[in-house]
This record gives sequence, structure tokens and C-alpha cells, in this order.
Amino acid sequence: MPNKELYKFDRSEALMARARKVVPSGIYGHASPVLLVPGSYPNFLARGKGCRIWDVDGNEYIDFMCSYGPVVLGHNHPRVDEAARAQQARADCLTLPGEVWVELAELLVDITPIADWVIFAKNGSDVTSWSLAVARAHTRRNKVIMVAGSYHGTHPWCTPIATGIPEADRANILPFHYNDLDELRRLVAENRGDIAGLIICPFRHEAFHDSEMPAPGFHQAVREICDQEGIVLILDDVRAGFRLHMGGSGEVLGLRPDLICYSKAIANGYALAVGLGREELRQATQSIFFTGTFWPATVSMAAAIATINTLREEGGIEQMTAMGTRLRQGLDQQARSLGVAINQTGPPTIPFMTFGADQGSFVRNRVFCGECARRGVFFHPHHNWFMSTAHTEADIDEALAVTEVAFRIIKERHGG
Amino acid sequence: MPNKELYKFDRSEALMARARKVVPSGIYGHASPVLLVPGSYPNFLARGKGCRIWDVDGNEYIDFMCSYGPVVLGHNHPRVDEAARAQQARADCLTLPGEVWVELAELLVDITPIADWVIFAKNGSDVTSWSLAVARAHTRRNKVIMVAGSYHGTHPWCTPIATGIPEADRANILPFHYNDLDELRRLVAENRGDIAGLIICPFRHEAFHDSEMPAPGFHQAVREICDQEGIVLILDDVRAGFRLHMGGSGEVLGLRPDLICYSKAIANGYALAVGLGREELRQATQSIFFTGTFWPATVSMAAAIATINTLREEGGIEQMTAMGTRLRQGLDQQARSLGVAINQTGPPTIPFMTFGADQGSFVRNRVFCGECARRGVFFHPHHNWFMSTAHTEADIDEALAVTEVAFRIIKERHGG
Repeated sequence: MPNKELYKFDRSEALMARARKVVPSGIYGHASPVLLVPGSYPNFLARGKGCRIWDVDGNEYIDFMCSYGPVVLGHNHPRVDEAARAQQARADCLTLPGEVWVELAELLVDITPIADWVIFAKNGSDVTSWSLAVARAHTRRNKVIMVAGSYHGTHPWCTPIATGIPEADRANILPFHYNDLDELRRLVAENRGDIAGLIICPFRHEAFHDSEMPAPGFHQAVREICDQEGIVLILDDVRAGFRLHMGGSGEVLGLRPDLICYSKAIANGYALAVGLGREELRQATQSIFFTGTFWPATVSMAAAIATINTLREEGGIEQMTAMGTRLRQGLDQQARSLGVAINQTGPPTIPFMTFGADQGSFVRNRVFCGECARRGVFFHPHHNWFMSTAHTEADIDEALAVTEVAFRIIKERHGG
Repeated sequence: MPNKELYKFDRSEALMARARKVVPSGIYGHASPVLLVPGSYPNFLARGKGCRIWDVDGNEYIDFMCSYGPVVLGHNHPRVDEAARAQQARADCLTLPGEVWVELAELLVDITPIADWVIFAKNGSDVTSWSLAVARAHTRRNKVIMVAGSYHGTHPWCTPIATGIPEADRANILPFHYNDLDELRRLVAENRGDIAGLIICPFRHEAFHDSEMPAPGFHQAVREICDQEGIVLILDDVRAGFRLHMGGSGEVLGLRPDLICYSKAIANGYALAVGLGREELRQATQSIFFTGTFWPATVSMAAAIATINTLREEGGIEQMTAMGTRLRQGLDQQARSLGVAINQTGPPTIPFMTFGADQGSFVRNRVFCGECARRGVFFHPHHNWFMSTAHTEADIDEALAVTEVAFRIIKERHGG
């Protein structure tokens, strides 16, 4: 492809120069350009519609990040936005909750097999940290088991970079390696009677790593261990929720948790987090203090009801699965025909791809994703991707025309 | 007043019965009815406009809680909502920030004397906890001083109810009593070289307590102690921000912090939290991991720009001060003429009133506020109130007609 067709990012770069003056690093956290490929990606986006996003230079992309997950129905979904607008016209954040507080709680309890009740917050971290407090209040124990490297948010107990965090804040967290039941059993035996909870994602999906599904029998064994030891089993479904099953991702992956944490996709981009739990944990939840000024706000709850109903009525997960599978098969075919070794991991609705020859370095991934971005397809080189129900066959095929070019560049530059 | 004129809450109670089934306690946290006066207040609100709110039974109130602070320009402010709507039509939560990220950061740095840079989050707790990490990363020390009983959020280090929180998570927090410089100096001497930060509100304003202003010289001494000991001084302006000074409440109260935490009023109800800091702390901020999926979302940033500009252009703080003073003088006059002893504390824009004879029991306060609520004036018996720029002289006078009745009831039932 001739260079003149490649995207330029002049306005993005100019904005970034201004941002660097008034924001440390200009952009920080998950949106930081250093997590993408500087020079090949924009730094700022301007708008979205369906599965398309436009950056501040006017470049258009087919979006396979969906805002790191929230946008499960596509950007600016008419039904969700209309529900939000109608609620906003009455009020959003008031001193007390609104009627949607009850309606959304009833809907979630209705569709979630393990849940008898619901609580609301704003961030995923709000509810993952809350789940630890519930487990601790319920068991009157302190220690919590998690998978080493698993991402549960940026609170002191779980942030992946512990700068500025005292060791004491993580003293009660016990990590084990994913799918390693021997290590888990050893950890439990060594801390018998001290373990309040075990928090786990429905599959392994941390950044800078191929995704990994639970080994056969792993989830069942985790449940048995928790039952034997009186440990509260927490499903962190913040990232995967509403892309595998409408009743919690554990339903398709054989995990029956005591608590579920949701956020991201639950309201198609409106900020909301939800914790759900079993009846036995209601008392423990009532005993802890958990609140935030914006948490009773109604707009994101109205958006959540519209999002969930749309996903259910339109068979959203099936649709995303079909389109994610089409993308996966297309990538597979292209790579195979060029003799490029790729790993495609995770479920089709939350796909990820790496290059075998990279051996964990992400060198080819950065070139591949950068070349795709400069041609209008927004993947991520270091983090799993997300499908939305707005992706059509035509969108997937248009994206695959670009990946074909990017694979050829990998072949030419790196030999495979 | 005849009973038939008093508000009824049938629909509120019916909704609460439903809520109790699907949400632990029905409503939890700061919005819990147990913090108000069950039977005299609604449990659910339906809408707001200006300084008026309506509950789900259709009862109308003059709102002196402003959603626990956020609603500084009144509910559904046209200019703020229009800015939010226009931004929402483009997109809210995307994979990367939008142009408003830069515009709001520049605006905040421009109006805030101590600030060279800005970071964004969602909850007040997000930024108060972040400020501790910055102080710790900067000083490579662990301990943090706070005022005993001060409310900085619900994260483990600061939640007022520590159920479900391991002691280790609070091991590095050192409390001292407000305005007690001797105790503060002793604490600093005992932990010399270990103290990373000191976090403090612009005045004492925790719930279930009269507000208390800083004693003369207190803030200056705090700054000197922090300078001498290399302690990062953090202003938690989450509750008071944008009701005392547009450049941080420290500007009118003689406190020059190194970091400022904002949330609540910054976007007139749209969920946003902001941390601001001095140049010397930029590097420390860059070294810590701080992120959330919804944090680059643009709608609340557009709302914040509109909120700040409106407050500045319309002299919002002066206006709220005048109306808060009118309310205060009216209450004072009524109480004095009836021989009822009251304490009015806090600044006029964030007022609070208790009854002297209650001696901290809040018995009269609950009766007073309950009687006001049933007649259409929404105060809070246990938590400071908030003024907005939507309160007019007529609104204050209308509210005072109700407080006159409530004071008479106190006089009749309690003798003063």
C-alpha cells in the first residue's frame, strides 16, 4: 500500500504535546500511548458510532477494543442512549436512588442463577475490593487467594505496579499460578482457617500474555476446595461479563461462584459496577460500609437495563461469537497461507492474537497492530480485544483485508 | 399545620419493600434511609430541577443536600447538560481520551494556584487513595497522618466502619485530633522520617458532628511541619471544593497543599474525580499505576468545563454565600425568638445546624429535619447541608416558613 494512504496523527501529536504539560505522562494508565505503538496509533479519539471510531485527525477505524470492553452493543447505541437521555432529563445523581435502582437489581437477580441480591458502584476496582471485604466480614478471616499476575484493578491489594503501596497493604494476598491445582491445594493447606476468599477471572486474560482457558476440572476443583475450607469464591467478571453468558461467565465455564463482580460492558459505556451474591452473604454485605456519592446515580442504571435487554432480545452473545469466530478463522487462514505462526487465544468474543516467533516479546505484534491501525483497524498489541454486536460480516471482511496487508509486512520484515 | 398537608410516602415504601429483597438493606451507604428519619423522608427520588427535587410519590422539596454535594448549579442545569449532551452525541467512553481531557486539565491548572498538573478518575475515594500513593512514591516512606474521624472515603485505609478490613491495611495510618497541634507535633516526632503524607479537609465536616473551622494559625503550622519534615500535604477538597474558592478551598482558609483531591461538585453531578499537584510531584505520579476503564470518558469532563465556567462567570460562590447566609440568619432569628439553642457551623455554602440541648444526640435534629421534610424542605439531620447557585431569596424564604413551623414543634415537644 502506498504511504500516502497511511493515517497521519498531526492533531493527536499536537494535543499530546499540550497534554504532557498539564497531565503527568500526558495520558496515563490503560489509555497510555506507550501501551499501544507510538507513531502508529492516535493518542486521542473524537467520536464513535457502531463498530467505528474516529480519531481527532479524522481517521476512521473498525474498533476491536470497544473502549477496553464497555461498548458491547457498539458506540452510541440508539436504544441505550435514548434510555439514558430520558433518565437524564429527570435527574441522574440525587440524594437518594431512583426507581431504576430497584428495576435493575430485580433484572440482574432474575438473569443471574447464583445471585439473590445486588449492590451498585462505579469502577470495577470498587466491586473487586468490596468482594474481599464481604468475604472477610463473612468468614472473619483475612487472607485472600488470587491468581498471580491476574488483573483485578488498581487498588493497593491488586495493582500490577506496587509503587507507592506499602507491603502491609498486600500482606494478606496469597498468589498461585493459574490452573495449578497442586499449588492451590498447598497454599490452602498452609493457611488453613485463615483464608476468607478466592478471587478469580472466568479465564486468564491479563495484558502482555496469551489468554488461557481453565483446564478441564479446574473450576470444579476450585469450587470443591472453597466448599471444604469455607472460602468465599469470587468471580471477577469485570472484563468478560456479558460476552460469554448473560448470567455470569461462570455459567459457560463451569464455575459457580458465591459473589460476582461486573462493570465494563454492563451499561454499554456508561460508568457502572455491580456486585452480586448469594443469600448467605447478605448479612456480611450489610455489615460493611460501601458507598460513593455517584453510586445511586440513575442514568447508568437506565443504560444498563437497556443494554441487558437488548443483548438478551437480540441474541447478542451468539452474534458476537459468530463475528469473533469469522475474524479468528480469517486471521488463521491468512497466517497459515503465509506460513506465519500465530496464537489465537481467549473466547471468540474476547479474542487475542500473538505471534509464535515473538516468544512473548510482542515485537511482531506491535508491528502488525501498528500497521493495522495506520490502515483503519484498531487492535491492541498487548491486551485482548473485544467484539461488539455492531460488528457485521462486512466489517470483519473489511478488517481482514487490512490484516492481510499487515501479515505480509510481518512476513517480509520478519520472515514469519 | 393539619396532618392532611403532610407528605406521604406510599410509593417510596412500596419500592423499598421490593428493594429489600434484591439489595442488602434495600439502600446502603450514604443514601440509606437509616441516615435520615424513616417515615419522615422518602426513600427514592424521581427528578430534580434547579433547587427542587421530587420524590417517587410526587412530593416536592427545596433541596439543601444537592445530592450530597455534586449539584452546585442546581439540578439539570441547562448549560452543563447541553455540554454533556453534545459530547455524548460524539462519544463518552472510548479506548483513548478525547480533546476535553486536555481542555479540562488546562482549565484546572489555570485556575488552581498550587497546581501544575491534573489527573482524572471517577470517585472521591479514587483520588484520596491515589494521593497517598503519590506521597509514598515521592518520599519512599509509608506512614500517613490524617485527622481522627475525618471522612476520606470507603477504601480500607479510611473507611469509617472497618468491618471486613484487615488491620494491616490501616497499619500505616496515624490519626490526630483536629486543631490539636501539640498532638500532631508529637506524632510527627515519634515517626520522624517515616511519614509520607498528611491528608486533611479544608475544615472539619464529618457526619454526626458539628462542623469545625481551622483554629487561627493551624493551617500555617501544618504547612510548616510538613515543610520541615518533607511530608507531602494533601488537601481533601472532595466535599468542599467549588463552594469556597474556585482555586481550591485552601485559598480562603490559609492552606497551601501539595496535592488537591476534587470530586462531587466539579461536574454538577456527572461522575468525575480529579487530583491536582505541584511540579515536584509529577515524577512520583508518573511512577504509580492509576487507571480505570471509565476514567478517560469525555461527557463528565465536558460537564466539568461547563460547570467551572458557569460558576466563574456567574460569581457562583458569592451567590451561594449570600443565600447560605440568608438561610443562616433566618434560622438564627427563628431559634432566638423561640428561645431554642442552636449551633450553626461550617461556611454558609456548606452549612449545618444542630440543637444545643441535644448534646450530640441528634434527637431534636431528627424531629426538626423530619418535620421539614414532610413539609417540603430537604435538610439532613446528621450530615452537613449544601447550597447551590439555584437557591434564590424566594426559595430561602419559602424554606424558612417551614423551619418556623418545625422550630415551634421542637419548642412544644422538647421545650427548646
